[in-house]
Amino acid sequence: MTETIQRPMRKGEQTRATILETALELASRDGLEGLTIGVLADRIGMSKSGVFAHFGSREDLQIGVLRLYNHQFEQDVFYPSIREPRGLPRLQSLFRRWVDRVSLEIASGCIYISGAVEYDDRPGPIRDQLLDMVDTWQRALQRAAQQAMDAGHLRSGTDPKQLVFEMYGLVLALHHDARFIRSPGAVARAHAGFQRLIASARVG
Amino acid sequence: MTETIQRPMRKGEQTRATILETALELASRDGLEGLTIGVLADRIGMSKSGVFAHFGSREDLQIGVLRLYNHQFEQDVFYPSIREPRGLPRLQSLFRRWVDRVSLEIASGCIYISGAVEYDDRPGPIRDQLLDMVDTWQRALQRAAQQAMDAGHLRSGTDPKQLVFEMYGLVLALHHDARFIRSPGAVARAHAGFQRLIASARVG
Repeated sequence: MTETIQRPMRKGEQTRATILETALELASRDGLEGLTIGVLADRIGMSKSGVFAHFGSREDLQIGVLRLYNHQFEQDVFYPSIREPRGLPRLQSLFRRWVDRVSLEIASGCIYISGAVEYDDRPGPIRDQLLDMVDTWQRALQRAAQQAMDAGHLRSGTDPKQLVFEMYGLVLALHHDARFIRSPGAVARAHAGFQRLIASARVG
Repeated sequence: MTETIQRPMRKGEQTRATILETALELASRDGLEGLTIGVLADRIGMSKSGVFAHFGSREDLQIGVLRLYNHQFEQDVFYPSIREPRGLPRLQSLFRRWVDRVSLEIASGCIYISGAVEYDDRPGPIRDQLLDMVDTWQRALQRAAQQAMDAGHLRSGTDPKQLVFEMYGLVLALHHDARFIRSPGAVARAHAGFQRLIASARVG
């Protein structure tokens, strides 16, 4: 995960950014596989060939959408958290900001979560890209859990992979209950589950 | 959830059952929305009109697939568990058999889980049917958790909805990690998470 330097965008870059943002909006609603150049061009008020001038294929566009999503996720969740002290404060910040982000996405859907179902059985570059991003995210969480052990905040016998498996489960249950069942209280339950999880691994 | 009495099937019923079983197989792989009468008819070696003679519409067929799936889920998970003693043994059996079933489905995918993502934003009779089944299942788990409290196996302050939220999370994480990431050890992690969950709610 590397930060990029902001600079003014040229016209072509601006059009490309508009296409990507609109494509992300559509993909969040209809899934990455539901994204079509036709509907996208219509929505922006461009011709299909105009869109193709910026993205050589539908697949390039889908990969671009994934990268944009990943960038936003890093900006909202990862970077603010690594400014917190190493150990439990950082791990707690990662979880809290992740839950915040998924809560805001309830109306549209999370591309990592819906993508995991869309591409679990669909090999190719999009699955590979998505897998790479989810893997990077899980490793970042595992690293934070390991640092919390190293800092003496969590018991040394704690298994970072088990901890992250359960954190992931809480966020998946939040997405499921809030977005599919539309049951109230899912955000509070995700936080309560994390409190219990940390309490059982905490030193003292 | 009511049990049905088995009796010999007539020819028409047998054809209907074959269509449904094949449709379930296809829907597990491609999603319920990916199910088309054309591909299904091809696979069985029937004409499309032959399939339509048994199911008036694609939607009727999709609902039929959901009911068949639900029936199998009840047979594998629910009924064997309610023969266990009320309380913790029954709750543990429900979770263990649920994990067993999802583990067997890793190659094909679980219709409840993939369906929740497919239909989170797609209103209509299929979403309603799926929602009804998932709701029935969550209530059955909550009832078992409540009975475990009533039997004095779990602490009286335990919140059945919180417990079931976290159990659901463990199964969603299992499905995610085993099917999308294909990471080994997900089944063991789901069981370890449940052990910890129960240990924190257990009396004594």
